[in-house]
Parts: sequence; structure tokens; C-alpha cells
Amino acid sequence: MNKCFVFAFLLWTTIILGQPKNDVLSDEEILKGIYTTALVKNQGYKWLEELTEMGPRLTGSENATKAVYHFQKIADSLGFKTFLQPVTVPQWVRGEAEEANYKTTSGKIVLNSCALGGSIATPEKGLKAPLFEITSFEQLDSLTTELEGKIAFYNIPMNPAFINTFFAYSNSAKQRYVGALEASKKGAVGVVIRSLSATVNDLPHTGSMTYKGADTKIPAMAISTLDAEKLSTNLKDNPSLEFFMKMNCESKDSVISYNLVAEIEGAQNSEEVIVLGGHTDSWDLGTGAHDDGAGCVHSLEAIWLLKQLDILPKRTVRVVFFMNEEFGLDGAKVYAKESKKENINHVIAIESDAGGFSPRGISVVAPDSLVARVREFRSLFEPYGLHQFTETGSGADISQLYSKDLVMLGLRPDNHRYFDIHHSAADVIESVSPRELEMGSATIAAFIYLLDKYDISAK
Amino acid sequence: MNKCFVFAFLLWTTIILGQPKNDVLSDEEILKGIYTTALVKNQGYKWLEELTEMGPRLTGSENATKAVYHFQKIADSLGFKTFLQPVTVPQWVRGEAEEANYKTTSGKIVLNSCALGGSIATPEKGLKAPLFEITSFEQLDSLTTELEGKIAFYNIPMNPAFINTFFAYSNSAKQRYVGALEASKKGAVGVVIRSLSATVNDLPHTGSMTYKGADTKIPAMAISTLDAEKLSTNLKDNPSLEFFMKMNCESKDSVISYNLVAEIEGAQNSEEVIVLGGHTDSWDLGTGAHDDGAGCVHSLEAIWLLKQLDILPKRTVRVVFFMNEEFGLDGAKVYAKESKKENINHVIAIESDAGGFSPRGISVVAPDSLVARVREFRSLFEPYGLHQFTETGSGADISQLYSKDLVMLGLRPDNHRYFDIHHSAADVIESVSPRELEMGSATIAAFIYLLDKYDISAK
Repeated sequence: MNKCFVFAFLLWTTIILGQPKNDVLSDEEILKGIYTTALVKNQGYKWLEELTEMGPRLTGSENATKAVYHFQKIADSLGFKTFLQPVTVPQWVRGEAEEANYKTTSGKIVLNSCALGGSIATPEKGLKAPLFEITSFEQLDSLTTELEGKIAFYNIPMNPAFINTFFAYSNSAKQRYVGALEASKKGAVGVVIRSLSATVNDLPHTGSMTYKGADTKIPAMAISTLDAEKLSTNLKDNPSLEFFMKMNCESKDSVISYNLVAEIEGAQNSEEVIVLGGHTDSWDLGTGAHDDGAGCVHSLEAIWLLKQLDILPKRTVRVVFFMNEEFGLDGAKVYAKESKKENINHVIAIESDAGGFSPRGISVVAPDSLVARVREFRSLFEPYGLHQFTETGSGADISQLYSKDLVMLGLRPDNHRYFDIHHSAADVIESVSPRELEMGSATIAAFIYLLDKYDISAK
Repeated sequence: MNKCFVFAFLLWTTIILGQPKNDVLSDEEILKGIYTTALVKNQGYKWLEELTEMGPRLTGSENATKAVYHFQKIADSLGFKTFLQPVTVPQWVRGEAEEANYKTTSGKIVLNSCALGGSIATPEKGLKAPLFEITSFEQLDSLTTELEGKIAFYNIPMNPAFINTFFAYSNSAKQRYVGALEASKKGAVGVVIRSLSATVNDLPHTGSMTYKGADTKIPAMAISTLDAEKLSTNLKDNPSLEFFMKMNCESKDSVISYNLVAEIEGAQNSEEVIVLGGHTDSWDLGTGAHDDGAGCVHSLEAIWLLKQLDILPKRTVRVVFFMNEEFGLDGAKVYAKESKKENINHVIAIESDAGGFSPRGISVVAPDSLVARVREFRSLFEPYGLHQFTETGSGADISQLYSKDLVMLGLRPDNHRYFDIHHSAADVIESVSPRELEMGSATIAAFIYLLDKYDISAK
């Protein structure tokens, strides 16, 4: 490593050698040390490379559980106290590559498609039926017999005018989650949805769906946004067009997998716990580099960074690698239940599940006075490009711990690209910028440091 | 296009049909219209796709001039008044793929390499010589006879601890620009530099170099950052290691190319000119999607956006597509000279030459009172994620117009990824996010609107 570029880092560590750093350095200096160490050492990116090399981590798969052991090995080697929490999780398998096509006067059109997570298979030889296109939820509500015997084609784009793509996603995600359920009530025999992506291209995006309350289960797939636009056009030219879909995915028996909890005991108030984490499971089309490999790595590296700087928080810190966020938050529910049983006194909860992009800010869920208190840290983060201190939720896994006495935070990375890769084959290490990932880890470490130092608590 | 996602846009345009929009709408509403139109229509991204499909646009190449005509055709079709300004530009050609290798006890190591722009060729059969590694500029200054007969190996990484990668680049770029010049003075026979990239990977990055003032010209190439690290290690094991480099690049006669100027006459103060632009030329390893296709498209689309919203600026607006930023700002110099000759009264100059990433802010070069005035717009841009109103320069091309009476602005996109792709084969359309690009165009359009409406001027 070159002398030049570690100068600041070495200077920083040399000044305070042998002293607890948080006693002699200002908050500005501590943050500089945290961000510098992250960007120079790239430890989190290395961990993410190792993780994604293991392949996808679909809930219930052998790989998902292997990833848990992999993180445990790292955490053990770093001197954490680790333990596993058994979690019963669903096991859905995609089976062979899906098929989707239709004929036009110019020939057969083959679509980029994928089964939605949790879908049943089509009949063995596939399913062929006319389509009915649904372009809004209002239209869906107004339908009476139009879907009978047909494949419902949900073509409800994410609204590109939203600056925050998560809002656009929330407004359109219903077609994926309950599209089959609602269409089956109106007599549809299958469902094809426009992928939930902010960009028009060839990638199909999977994601979870539910049959809860359905009398009849019908198969559901996603097609790429570009294919959805083409299909819509072709359907206008030929409303009796027949759509063919074939999938042999299936739900198998539930299996046991695990949450991983890695803990460092607090130096003073060890009965108070700061919990942070991401989810180990991923979708299977990519390798879950952003969703949520980045979140797991952010969390683990945040603690590693504090350790590198000899900062031992007063409170106990727990990193939780939640299992099965994607298919129903099973791990988060188990963690919340076990914590309640053991009277774990969580004071702060932090989640990273919005990708490994440039961090733009943090979202805080807490009583107003504490939100204001957290916002006072804003000037410390401005040099690192964090300006957005919002109140737009925290994270799905830690939401299971919700209480009015808990200060909850969610990392908010830049989200313009998130839904280009989310749940698709593009969610791989190549789509992660090492620097952007490291900035996220450093941000979480910095927040833990400050929230701990200043005893931020709603209790 | 779906009803749902253009709702805000349609509503916006419908309200004010037939009226000059800036008379009836607030600044907040105008900005909403600008950003919505950009994100819904994606016009700039479509232009960037067309541009990059044409291939690289190396200064002096046929392609670079073709790109000028391509932009002129678009600008003409939009109703701009357009004209070309002849620019004499150098013509350097890379020739065949470069070769670089050395032997270790485990066999021959082949490196990812590329000639630096402007370099002479090696002898036809290549150049083989021992290496001398230089790891800092201070070390270079202290050298006496160490480089004689050797290939100077500059291995001075960009400092990852800088949050702004442009600062890290500036601190290391000297090895590329004057590395050969300085090494030749000390007797070196060739130069190999570590690519100027913030990430350690396999991509070589080219860029310009100078022989100005050199008695002897020696050939210079860049190798990937990863290869530089390996080479450094191997060189420690075997200091007499011989490095082989072969390049047949050459400088040909200068040729005539062009600046393109596209103008819309101002509605009231047409003698005052707002100039904005990027540079048409690119490096040849990629297709200059970010550098500076994005800047050209940002500039053109900014005006297109105002037009879409029936906003006609009071001042004349000129979009300039500068030729040859990369090899010495020839186009910018011609534009400045011609403008002076014609007494063009520039009041505002805006440049986009920092990539098509999420815009994070703007840099302003102006008298203090005007910097403060521009900063007053900050709250208007916060909803769009722009918070950084800095004074860190404007842009290389518009810098040729510098006067204390000119308000100069540079778009400041997120820069964490910029030097991963800069001047390399990764600078292609796939590395551009449509949403991020569009946010940049909208930001420039919004600034033009505000600077024009509020008569911002240093005169």
C-alpha cells in the first residue's frame, strides 16, 4: 500500500496510539477516521465479493444457510460472541427456466420472464390463454367478468416522476404481491405482470406474491418492462392474442434455517442494546449483492470499523443477519419474539436494506424530540455527502421490534438505480461500487458511535 | 405510456395551456415540471444511446466530426439556430492493441495496458528494459541517475481517503501528464503508469500526456491498477525484472474539426448570453458515454426541457459542443477567441463534464455576493437531492471564458464511480443510469430558468 494514500489514516492512528480514541478526539476526527479506514481498507467490499461468489441465497436453500455459517465464521474470527436462532422458513424452488411467448403476424415473440416467488407451476405442458391487460388498480376494481378464462396482464409501471423510487415501487408493488389473488377471484387462469423496475429494458424482476385467502391458486410470472410495452402494443393490434406461459416452480416443505446474532458486550451500559442488521437471504436470479448482501456487510463492517479504531461502545451492540426477509420476515419475527422472551433492552435499531449505493442520509423513526436530536448530527455528515435526515420508515426486519421506546434508523442510499437491479439478474457484485458500499458502512459506524456516545434513547 | 405515471405531468401542462408558464407558476411548480418531464420522457438518454452507438469520438477522428453533425441535425430539428466553428485539432491514433508483459519464475505475466494519448510508439519490435518504481512525486524529484536506461514505473495511487474523487485525481494526475517528460530528463527510455482509477481492477485508463519542453520523447503507457500492484510486488521479488512494452500509436497531421453552437434568441435581453455545454470528443477505449456524452446531452436536453414547457428565456441561450477538451481545449480556445472578436456578452456559463451520475449540487465561481445569491436557490433543489453548493471550479472548457464579470457554474454529480470508468473501456452506455442522467439535464434546465428569471449577473 502506498505511503501517500494512507497518510491521513496513519497520522490519525498514530496521534492517539494506546488511548481510547473517543476520549481524545473530536467527533469530526472520529468520523474522519471511520470513513478513511473504510475507503482505504475496503474490508466490506472484500466480504461482499466472498459472499456473492457463493451464489444466490434463496430462502430455504442450502446456500442461504451456508451464508449464515460464512458470516458466523467471519464474526467469530473478529472476536464477536455469536449464536444462531433457528427459523422455520418456506422453501420455494424455481425449477427450469420459464417460458413465455405469443405469436404475431411477424412470428413468435419470446419474452424475458421469471416466475414470481411463491407461485405455483403451470400445467406441465404450459398454459395458453387470451390476455386481458390491466393498467391501473382502479380498473382492476371495476372488472366483473372480463378476466374469466384469461391470463391477467398487469401493466402498471412504476411512476418515473417520483424522485424517490421507493415511493414509485410501493405504489405499483400490489400487482406483484396480490395480483394473482385478486385476478383469481375474478376468474383469471394465470397472471403476468410488468416487472417492477424504473427502467425500460430486457430484465425480468421476481419478488414475492401471496395466495392468502385465495380459493384458487393461479400461476404468476413477471416479464421485462420492455416486453410488457411490446406486449401491450401487440395486444392492441390483436386483442385475441394467446399468451403461452410455462413454469415448473414449486413450494416444498418448510425447512430450518437461522438468524445469526453477533454481539459485542458494552463497556458500561451493557444491558442496553443497539441492534443493527440486514437480511442474509436473497432472490435467486442474481446473487443479492445489493439486496441485501450490502446491508449484511454494512452492518458487520460498521462494528469492524469501530474495532479498528479501538472504539468500544458503552452499550452492547448486536449485529443480526436476519433470515427470510423476502418471503415474509420469518427471521425478524423470531428475533423479536426471542428478544421479548429474554427481556433484551433494545434502545436503538438500525437497518440497511436499500442497497449499497452512495449514502444520501438516514431515516429516523422516533419521538419528535429525538428526531430533532439526531438531526443535530447533520453537519457532521455533510462532508460525506449525507444531507437527507427524513422520517420515511426504517426497515422491514427491525420493524418487527417496533415500540415507541425504540429509536429506529434506516440507511438511505441514493435510490435512482436500486429498482434497475432489485430482484433481477443484475443484482451482482459488478453492480456495486466499492467506494459507495464503503461509504455506507462508515455511515452506520458513525451513527452507532454518536448515538452511543450521546446516550440517545427514547426510554 | 401509462396514464398513471404521467398524471402529474399532464396535470401540470394542462393547467397552464396557452399561457407563458413562468408567469403563472411558482418556481417550485416550474422545477417540478422540468424534473417530471425529464424523468418521464427520457429524451436525453435516447440521444445518448444514439451518440454512443456511433462509437468512440477521439479528437481528430472522423467519428468526432460525425458526432458534431449528428448533434447539429438534432439541434436544427428542434428549431435552434446552429453554426459550426472550425477548430484545428491534433490527430493521434492508437494503432494496434498494445502489448505489455514481463517474466516471473511462474511464467509470463501479460498486463492490461493502453498507450497514453499523445505518446509516441515504441520501436517496431517493442521496448524491453529494467524498471524503476516511483511511488511519490517527492521521490521523483530526488532521483539522480536511477532512471538511466530504465522504464520509469509510476505507481502513485489515487488517495482513496478523499471523499471527492476529483481531488484524489488532481493529486495523482501529474504522473500521467508529465510522467514521461520528467522521466526522460533523468534518462528513462519509457514510462508505464498506474491507471488513474479509484478502484483496483483490470481496466487500463488512458488520458493525455505532454512532451512540451522534452529533449527526448519516450513512449508512455498505462496499466491497470491491479496489474500495477502485482508488478510492484514482482519487482520487489526481482528488482532486475525486464519489462516489455509495444505500441504503434502515432501523431498524424492536425485536421479541421468543429465546435457546434446552437442558439435560441432571448425574448427580452437577447444581447446577454447564457452559454452552456460539454465536449463532443471522447477517448477511444469506450464510447465516452459519461465523458462527455452526458455533458453534451445534459446541455442540449436542458434547453429542450425549457422548450417542452414553453419557457423562453429572456436572455439568449447558447449550447456549445466543444471540440477537443481531451487533447488541450482547442475548441474552447477558439470559442473564447471568436466570442471576443464578436463582442458576445456572456453573463452566465455552465458546464457539465463530470459524468452522468446523480447530481449532488453545483459549483459556482462568481463574486461572493452572487455565490450567496445562487445559494438562496438551495431549498428549491433539496427535493431533488441537490445539497452541495460549492466553489470548487466550474469546468475546463468554459474556464477559457473566465472573467470576473462572468458567473460560472459546474454541475456536480456524485463522483464515487466517476474514476472507475473515466477514460477506460467502461465508459459506455451500460454504465449510465437513465434516471441519473435525466436528473442532471433537469438540474441544468432548472438553473438556467432561475438564473435567467432573476437576472443573475456580475455585470
